[in-house]
Amino acid sequence: MKKFPSWAEAAPRLIDVAAGRTPADMVIRGGIWVNVQSREVLDGYDVAIAEGRFAAIAPDLSYCIGGDTHVIEAEGRYMIPGFCDGHMHIESGMLIPAEFARAVIPHGTTTMFTDPHEIANVLGLRGVKLMHDEALMQPVNIFTQMPSCAPSAPGLETTGWEITPDDVTEAMAWPGIVGLGEMMNFPGVAAGDAKMLAEIAATQSAGKIVGGHYASPDLGKPFAAYVAGGPADDHEGTQESDAIERVRQGMRSMLRLGSAWYDVETQITAITEKGLDPRNFILCTDDCHSGTLVNDGHMNRVVRHAIECGCDPLIALQMATVNTATHFGLERELGSITPGRRADVILTSDLRSLPIETVIARGIVVAEAGEVKVPCPHLDWPADARNTVHLGKSLTAEDFILLAPEGANQVRAKVIGVVENQAPTKALTAELPVLDGAVQANEAQDVCYISLVERHRATGEVTNGLVSGFGYKGQMAIASTVAHDSHHMIVVGTSREDMAKAANRLGKVGGGITVWRDGAEIALVPLPVAGLMSDSPATEVAEQASGMVEAMAACGCNLNNAYMQHSLLALVVIPELRISDLGLVDVTRFELTDVIEG
Amino acid sequence: MKKFPSWAEAAPRLIDVAAGRTPADMVIRGGIWVNVQSREVLDGYDVAIAEGRFAAIAPDLSYCIGGDTHVIEAEGRYMIPGFCDGHMHIESGMLIPAEFARAVIPHGTTTMFTDPHEIANVLGLRGVKLMHDEALMQPVNIFTQMPSCAPSAPGLETTGWEITPDDVTEAMAWPGIVGLGEMMNFPGVAAGDAKMLAEIAATQSAGKIVGGHYASPDLGKPFAAYVAGGPADDHEGTQESDAIERVRQGMRSMLRLGSAWYDVETQITAITEKGLDPRNFILCTDDCHSGTLVNDGHMNRVVRHAIECGCDPLIALQMATVNTATHFGLERELGSITPGRRADVILTSDLRSLPIETVIARGIVVAEAGEVKVPCPHLDWPADARNTVHLGKSLTAEDFILLAPEGANQVRAKVIGVVENQAPTKALTAELPVLDGAVQANEAQDVCYISLVERHRATGEVTNGLVSGFGYKGQMAIASTVAHDSHHMIVVGTSREDMAKAANRLGKVGGGITVWRDGAEIALVPLPVAGLMSDSPATEVAEQASGMVEAMAACGCNLNNAYMQHSLLALVVIPELRISDLGLVDVTRFELTDVIEG
Repeated sequence: MKKFPSWAEAAPRLIDVAAGRTPADMVIRGGIWVNVQSREVLDGYDVAIAEGRFAAIAPDLSYCIGGDTHVIEAEGRYMIPGFCDGHMHIESGMLIPAEFARAVIPHGTTTMFTDPHEIANVLGLRGVKLMHDEALMQPVNIFTQMPSCAPSAPGLETTGWEITPDDVTEAMAWPGIVGLGEMMNFPGVAAGDAKMLAEIAATQSAGKIVGGHYASPDLGKPFAAYVAGGPADDHEGTQESDAIERVRQGMRSMLRLGSAWYDVETQITAITEKGLDPRNFILCTDDCHSGTLVNDGHMNRVVRHAIECGCDPLIALQMATVNTATHFGLERELGSITPGRRADVILTSDLRSLPIETVIARGIVVAEAGEVKVPCPHLDWPADARNTVHLGKSLTAEDFILLAPEGANQVRAKVIGVVENQAPTKALTAELPVLDGAVQANEAQDVCYISLVERHRATGEVTNGLVSGFGYKGQMAIASTVAHDSHHMIVVGTSREDMAKAANRLGKVGGGITVWRDGAEIALVPLPVAGLMSDSPATEVAEQASGMVEAMAACGCNLNNAYMQHSLLALVVIPELRISDLGLVDVTRFELTDVIEG
Repeated sequence: MKKFPSWAEAAPRLIDVAAGRTPADMVIRGGIWVNVQSREVLDGYDVAIAEGRFAAIAPDLSYCIGGDTHVIEAEGRYMIPGFCDGHMHIESGMLIPAEFARAVIPHGTTTMFTDPHEIANVLGLRGVKLMHDEALMQPVNIFTQMPSCAPSAPGLETTGWEITPDDVTEAMAWPGIVGLGEMMNFPGVAAGDAKMLAEIAATQSAGKIVGGHYASPDLGKPFAAYVAGGPADDHEGTQESDAIERVRQGMRSMLRLGSAWYDVETQITAITEKGLDPRNFILCTDDCHSGTLVNDGHMNRVVRHAIECGCDPLIALQMATVNTATHFGLERELGSITPGRRADVILTSDLRSLPIETVIARGIVVAEAGEVKVPCPHLDWPADARNTVHLGKSLTAEDFILLAPEGANQVRAKVIGVVENQAPTKALTAELPVLDGAVQANEAQDVCYISLVERHRATGEVTNGLVSGFGYKGQMAIASTVAHDSHHMIVVGTSREDMAKAANRLGKVGGGITVWRDGAEIALVPLPVAGLMSDSPATEVAEQASGMVEAMAACGCNLNNAYMQHSLLALVVIPELRISDLGLVDVTRFELTDVIEG
């Protein structure tokens, strides 16, 4: 892979092109220059590109055209900078970085700031490095934020690996690292936790940006203490007051529209109604499923949505280009169509509906009318990254038995209550029958089994509990190695036999999601890379995922985002009840608790 | 000197203060928070400070007040961030950094981005380091831009030292270096000059900012080529179109109001009338004489002026605070009253007239009602920096003779024509009498002698020429070791005897400016540090400078900025005629030329 030249390396050529001494590699002719620096729309401009960077922008650059210059006729269309996604997780698309890039390039995304938090839990620093390395192989800009919080909840779960301040220090020297990934341990920062502060300090002394994650509505002392700790941005705001307070306190407020996040409309009024200076607002996706990428778009969807919410199109574009670049200290490197910057441009014929007609990244046409025109190279993912489901043994139905106390015919048990469209669960209880010493699921009460299968250290351990709210009927099971945040395996089912089959199946295919009914597999999403990602194209993964959702429905579950609800059941940082490899977790009190009550 | 702690070092304490676990060092109570991040004015806020940094800003921080907390009652006044000067030369004040700081602190300037270009010409990298070191000793933030262009005009003058790309690389590692000083060699950059590009590359690879200086009205190819070379800002614009074009091309447009620069009013209409996004505009002074600092102010004068020009006060304040900080990659370090940043605050009771009532820098009250409250420590300037006027011999009237060709009674000679209120000179000619082989000055034609006395290498060489426009009468001379840009000694006079006396006098006092009439000194501004700066207080220097201007007037010169005209006569980068140690310079053709014609 040829190293992309720095501005300094490219400067002699850029100067010669701008001065008319040598022709450009590419000239875009006769477009409308959407200038996100001056916030103007300027008709009748040419753009000259050399060495993958902008050399000049002027009304007439015919003097830059030579025999080998690739001339693109803009034909009066808008030339806007390629979109930047300010905060996101590639793993959410269930795609490796290359396939994620291939999915979003036709939507005009040319820069991503990605936090490979999920793989960090499975493969530690080595996993982050693999993501980082594949990211740097792509024809678009993928910067990596070093994950900060693995485990998310020390003492309540066991990750595959832990991230330490030394890891953070080491990663800060990698070429693609732009900062620290979202600092989710906000209570830790506010309490002055030494490990969290050491990670922040390592990032700051490298001159890089600390990503924030303050997921609480309390804007009082805990928020003040968190801000004083150093996180520079936050994407967890959900209300206008969240956005306003973050900006007032000197953070950048990231407004997200993901597959299941809808936080732009509620917060953008800080600009459109309250009139705050928009410079500190940034658009991002956080999490997008492959289906969203295939069917709805990526950052183009977010910008379009912001405009539909009443935001001035130029301000919305700034929030997805120059504001993001400025935040990460990259304003001289990308984010605007101005000399020296990476030549990332979208041609579009409408500034509101934003059809993405041509996408140019680093001076190369990377997509045309929705079709990717360049390769997105895959890393040769090593065997240990493809073989991460370590069950230690073949599981049987016995492993999934929740034992009742000796001699009990019935028990009162804690049940994780899934709530549609909400991330928090409810801590429920149910009276359940016991058969041969095993607590029984109960279709009438919509209570089925949930098990957390350890898969990092091959301990063969299974933690058993109960869950309600999926509506599963008949004999079924669903298993997933996407199991935020430590990514063991979550198995939910009404049949212990099917649960064992599903779990073993994932052990065999190296991870993913599988749905079983009446002893047979009815859907499979293979995610062989770390048990989190596929190296197939997004269209294929989206189709498999859609088959998986249909299979869940066929088993009786009709929740919105049914699969997301499943995969978050081990997320031991969000109330009220979760399951981990260490047991059932009461997340209101941050402690382990018994399933069977007194 | 105690090192000022980084945010990371201060974070544990800042968090504890914000959380209410430990008291603050200082609390400002009941002020109006001028929030330059959100561009809002928020009434009724407290500010808590610890470790010299902001810990929290909230409506009620009484919980941060302990027994040792210094409580300041804002009494409903505005709390605005300390002012930043985006580009300036300390030497223009004829003051060492400590005394410059002492002069501007009462005006609310708490951050300066300074380019010690003048001392670089006299003492090279070592001189820059001395300025840098004294800058870091001050109670306010003085960042140094590494000078880029010494000599300004290679081949046309000989500086004391030259700055090389290796010097730039070395300086980039110093703690107070923020970037490269104004790249004045704009024709060199546009031509792809390897040395200039190497300096830019060294700066960019250190992740620092390249200062610009494009002093031409041509916004076509030469400008495009210059921008492509990498300068990130420019303060040489004089018209609205200059400001607009710089911002459109991705540079930051610095608008200056110096002692003799009036470029705010003509350019700020880019914001006030054309409606450009103001984020890329920055206010600066570039050059302020000590008299301006003593009588008129510093950045407060510039901000006030911008407001008088119709700029929204909040936008004007942003242009002197957060915009500047963002430009230099210091937005997380200073420029706004938000947690973690250096606690630099001004209390003022009016947002338009901007009376500077209290100034706090890094959490310490540094000025109150115009009085400085803290020491501004002097560096122990070494002998070689105080003894820089090396004449090599005692000069006599003979040394100042401009020889006529053998046997001539009269000559036709080139004369440097000073034009009031303009930096460029005119190339004039005059018919002048010859006496004993020496060309004679002529009061009737307002032509007197000008000589450039070499003072860096003790060569004893004197270059002689003619100048017109000062209106000097009788027997007089004025000599100055401030002689942009190579800072030899410029001597102008009607009497060669007085010229020799003036020159020898500066050799004795180590540099400065001296005015002589009828064989006696009538004014002296001693500038013992590098022949450029005084270590006396600004009031004293301003008084001496004012005495010098009166003395020039007493000799018949009533030009505006008479002294500046004098000190620029060796500036061999501005047309049309100048004098250097190598001879008379035709700056329209960039070549040496003969004084005597034909």
